[in-house]
Amino acid sequence: MAKKRILSGMRPSGRLHLGNYAGALENWVKLQNEFDCFYFVADWHALTTNPSAAFEVQENTYQMIIDWLAAGINPENPIFIQSQIKEHAELHLIFSMLITTARLERNPTLKEQVRDLNTENMIYGHLGYPVLQAADILMYRANVVPVGEDQAPHVEITREIARKFNQTYGEVFPEPETRLTTFARLPGLDGRKMGKSNNNFILLSDPEEEIRKKVRTAVTDPQKVRRNDPGHPD
Amino acid sequence: MAKKRILSGMRPSGRLHLGNYAGALENWVKLQNEFDCFYFVADWHALTTNPSAAFEVQENTYQMIIDWLAAGINPENPIFIQSQIKEHAELHLIFSMLITTARLERNPTLKEQVRDLNTENMIYGHLGYPVLQAADILMYRANVVPVGEDQAPHVEITREIARKFNQTYGEVFPEPETRLTTFARLPGLDGRKMGKSNNNFILLSDPEEEIRKKVRTAVTDPQKVRRNDPGHPD
Repeated sequence: MAKKRILSGMRPSGRLHLGNYAGALENWVKLQNEFDCFYFVADWHALTTNPSAAFEVQENTYQMIIDWLAAGINPENPIFIQSQIKEHAELHLIFSMLITTARLERNPTLKEQVRDLNTENMIYGHLGYPVLQAADILMYRANVVPVGEDQAPHVEITREIARKFNQTYGEVFPEPETRLTTFARLPGLDGRKMGKSNNNFILLSDPEEEIRKKVRTAVTDPQKVRRNDPGHPD
Repeated sequence: MAKKRILSGMRPSGRLHLGNYAGALENWVKLQNEFDCFYFVADWHALTTNPSAAFEVQENTYQMIIDWLAAGINPENPIFIQSQIKEHAELHLIFSMLITTARLERNPTLKEQVRDLNTENMIYGHLGYPVLQAADILMYRANVVPVGEDQAPHVEITREIARKFNQTYGEVFPEPETRLTTFARLPGLDGRKMGKSNNNFILLSDPEEEIRKKVRTAVTDPQKVRRNDPGHPD
């Protein structure tokens, strides 16, 4: 029996850190045993919240793929860059005729993002990014999409678009299943979530000496960050 | 000096009638003397208000282009079909990151269309069709866009997207000028506006005998449609 197909993508963020590894990449490597895996660089998605990301996208793509391969992603799997395949944009345009703005506005993950971006002006392409995701997933007729809880509403939108397309044009796309995955949230060197913007990360590509140095500065007790904090005195 | 470039498109509607000729095609033929003209079939646009249009789009495209050529569109000009050039979809996706939903919702032409369609549910791709139009126009660096008054707000959106793109990524696109054109609204055989849905049209391709027959039934006095109507007795 043919293996089921998985599709998953990552925005191009350059060299990956241990938080990215524990949060997604480790899982990607494991999934390769059980599924037919399609992994891709979601570079168009990187523009939804920041059009200027275009300036770093190429270099960040190369750097990230090096870390994918180093972590154990099998290069015999299809690995691709979204923007290199124009049919993603084509399918996005066709799908954009099959969903209402009201449905997209009900997306709870979008509401959170807009709040975090602290903007009152929703970008048109940001409202529609689950439509682009639907194009990414359905184009390869993926059966299973591994997501964290915050991304589950997007797979639901993909399923709705697949149904609507099939009703309108005839049976073409399978409705993909959501595979809820509990991703680890790795604490960074200062106890907050590890992330590039927090500058509290260890890169997969950091040399050994650099890692030793960083680990020595790591906070082991979040209640005793400064020398004079009480910590856990009992 | 190089001629300025015009870009204009028509949704694929099959064989054209005299109303289409007087309303746009006659003008297209004239513009060829003065401008470098790019004319295209806006088949993706046909889906914005009716996804099922896809089933007739190919045949309607061929039939329409036959009438373009018969009316005098020079086949040495670029004549193309929007959906055959994937870069329209690509640019549409990139531009969708450069405009807010609020700006698109302020489009008065859209508001009218939504009212005419008598629907409360705005389709995402319908909200964004001026973004697709911007991609159509800017991709060819058109300098002039001939439009009726109802389409002028779209060229304004195109100009805004061009400015935003140039600000973000560097000077690439010229801001096209609007060329307001007064299109004739030809009355049909029954005195209402000539149109396919009103079944009151004469096709450019109707044979002579058919045209004679249709003209004999035409209403010449809109106040005397039936034999017993008073007409203009004074």
